Amino acid sequence: MAHRVVIVGGGFGGLAAARALRRARVEVTLVDRRNFHLFQPLLYQVATGSLSPANIAAPLRALLRKQRNARVLLGDVREIDANRRRVLLANGELPYDTLVVAAGVSHHYFGHDEWAAFAPGLKTIEDATEIRSRILLAFERAERSGDDAQRRALLTFVVVGGGPTGVELAGALAEIARVTLRDDFRAADPTDARIVMLEAAQRVLPSYPPDLSRAAEASLRRLGVEVRTGALVTALTPGAVEFREGVGAQSLAAETVLWAAGVKASPLAQELAGATGAPLDRAGRVRVRPDLTVPGHPEIVVIGDLACVEQSGAPLPGVAPVAMQQGAFAARLVRARLRGRTPGPFIYRDRGNLATIGRNAAVADVFGLRFTGYLAWLVWLFVHLMNIVEFRNRLLVLVQWAWNYWTFDRSARLITGETAASAVIDGDRTGRP
Amino acid sequence: MAHRVVIVGGGFGGLAAARALRRARVEVTLVDRRNFHLFQPLLYQVATGSLSPANIAAPLRALLRKQRNARVLLGDVREIDANRRRVLLANGELPYDTLVVAAGVSHHYFGHDEWAAFAPGLKTIEDATEIRSRILLAFERAERSGDDAQRRALLTFVVVGGGPTGVELAGALAEIARVTLRDDFRAADPTDARIVMLEAAQRVLPSYPPDLSRAAEASLRRLGVEVRTGALVTALTPGAVEFREGVGAQSLAAETVLWAAGVKASPLAQELAGATGAPLDRAGRVRVRPDLTVPGHPEIVVIGDLACVEQSGAPLPGVAPVAMQQGAFAARLVRARLRGRTPGPFIYRDRGNLATIGRNAAVADVFGLRFTGYLAWLVWLFVHLMNIVEFRNRLLVLVQWAWNYWTFDRSARLITGETAASAVIDGDRTGRP
Repeated sequence: MAHRVVIVGGGFGGLAAARALRRARVEVTLVDRRNFHLFQPLLYQVATGSLSPANIAAPLRALLRKQRNARVLLGDVREIDANRRRVLLANGELPYDTLVVAAGVSHHYFGHDEWAAFAPGLKTIEDATEIRSRILLAFERAERSGDDAQRRALLTFVVVGGGPTGVELAGALAEIARVTLRDDFRAADPTDARIVMLEAAQRVLPSYPPDLSRAAEASLRRLGVEVRTGALVTALTPGAVEFREGVGAQSLAAETVLWAAGVKASPLAQELAGATGAPLDRAGRVRVRPDLTVPGHPEIVVIGDLACVEQSGAPLPGVAPVAMQQGAFAARLVRARLRGRTPGPFIYRDRGNLATIGRNAAVADVFGLRFTGYLAWLVWLFVHLMNIVEFRNRLLVLVQWAWNYWTFDRSARLITGETAASAVIDGDRTGRP
Repeated sequence: MAHRVVIVGGGFGGLAAARALRRARVEVTLVDRRNFHLFQPLLYQVATGSLSPANIAAPLRALLRKQRNARVLLGDVREIDANRRRVLLANGELPYDTLVVAAGVSHHYFGHDEWAAFAPGLKTIEDATEIRSRILLAFERAERSGDDAQRRALLTFVVVGGGPTGVELAGALAEIARVTLRDDFRAADPTDARIVMLEAAQRVLPSYPPDLSRAAEASLRRLGVEVRTGALVTALTPGAVEFREGVGAQSLAAETVLWAAGVKASPLAQELAGATGAPLDRAGRVRVRPDLTVPGHPEIVVIGDLACVEQSGAPLPGVAPVAMQQGAFAARLVRARLRGRTPGPFIYRDRGNLATIGRNAAVADVFGLRFTGYLAWLVWLFVHLMNIVEFRNRLLVLVQWAWNYWTFDRSARLITGETAASAVIDGDRTGRP
């Protein structure tokens, strides 16, 4: 009977592992709770109305259609039975010879899960369209507001977290207010919008080289974003953010707060720890061996954001290139085992870092070079475009980027879904038409 | 003080009226519950995963940005005070000198509103993405089903209604099953899917010329759609459809039922009738005078699907070209009144009918000619493309259509939203991986 590989999660890591096994004598089953692979680095563009969800999502079945040894299942993995080598789904089970766990992470509210309702994060498609609705509705409500204090609060946007996601969101928000919506309203002035970024560390992009952090912060300020470092959020309530800056406590009246501040591991990590005794780190990620396997269970590999593995004395970051290389490594591991061999440890080849702050501006640390500005932005565009897995999506994204760029427009400014309906029906109390 | 025109609804009628007033000495306020104009004729393509919502929606503010005498408000009109000439929103009011009511229609379940949960209709973006999720999930669940009867029910799709919407939906469903998803599954065979159309009248497209109805039915059958005319739905329950065909009662086990069978007027029509004594027809639409005004209230104009006006002995159909011409007429009415004149009645210039049944096949009754097949399909493509209001969207739709056509693919096959989450968590009882 063929060697059965079960891969949990169809993100960068899981998909890379599945594809790298295409010529191996194995049966691959990829399980995911969603039917598509999501290009997360561009989620913030869905959240700010530049792209549509389908532009950055590709159906997993389409991606693996031609791979005869692979099948895709839509399912939710509940338990891992490491003794009998089975994963249990909501309604069924999958036996495995090798298990690759690539279930990723979700938002971390540092013990305040109740903040999730006030400050959505940006990990899923639904997060992105929800944020999009909230941003656009804030401007709509400001247009109808008769109360100055309320209008200011509606036009105040807070982004919590100064990592790449937060930086990209804040930059895009500033562009929306200053450029995209500038002429769209009559009573409210979108260019009055205040965009505030709160980062707890002493600089934005704390995991990047310091000179790039400085460049990013300068770009953000040029766009009119207020960057506040050393700022730690202490409380979130409807319409207000409280934070500690240095020794002082501050408060901001803001109707729209976006969370880009922390991630925590999928609950599957806990499940794995319970089933195998695997140690977890502080964020709940699985501390794997240098070959990415679970201690004591060489048939279980953990990759991507869910894995905590050190290199050069620090844990590898939870970014797409790491997950992709780990996925390919997991496949190498399986193929080597089938031949009775043992590969060496996983070694990540860091190709650099990129982050964009808006039109024509980005920071890049690639190919051993560091640069900023227009060239960095072009590199950012190119790298992201080429890494989108479906050619059709590359084409659509390119067309929309070109359009958005030349017309200063954003292609997908729709208020959809639940938020849309309830916001309009309830309205706001001091509204005047 | 300038003449104030309030337009309720930003669909084909309302938008046409607003734009046609761009040079008039009026102040235009367009109110809609949504922030975008929707190109409804292509909604079925969002429902079947070929296009994304943003491709067929354009933000109203963007469309009217350059029109200095127009402003857009996101709001919900609750009441019409015809005496004091004001519309009341959820939280505010708008005085008017002329009121244009273009609020449209929604689904009509013929007294069985409870069927809405089992058989979604196709009028809004959320309808379309919900239908898309249900269709894709049906195939996903069929892949995991261990029960033959259940798999057959999961692969049975019923479209209730044989008008243009139903025909286009059924044709697209057949293509999805026979072509798009053909190689995507391993356990279930999508080409086994059964697509049944139930139309109560004696032929599909009952409002089209009979030879075109026959051509459309032939095309549907060639695609493998079971067309059942004279079939009236009597009951809808989870997983089953009961209908009367001739004198016999029939029942179908079907997990996915789509409603394209009837429309009823927006509740604003009732509100208008109560405020002005305007008569309504059986579908709740407002019986307007030949100049589209409410009897006794020449300052209130009703256009689009919400208006019932006869021409050549029959009420004009609720289609986009009618609404667009009526919107332009409403603007002419206002401009004429400002000059102290009275224009003649509204006369609709019927440019014909179109409906597509799938790749290379459509029926067309335009320019005084009737034709079917490939040429009709090209005309259908062209007419729809040119009527999309935003050039950027035309470009995106064209790119995706070209891609979908050449690759036999569908660009936007995502399962998103509430349905996605609950379906996976609950699963189905007899599932096996």
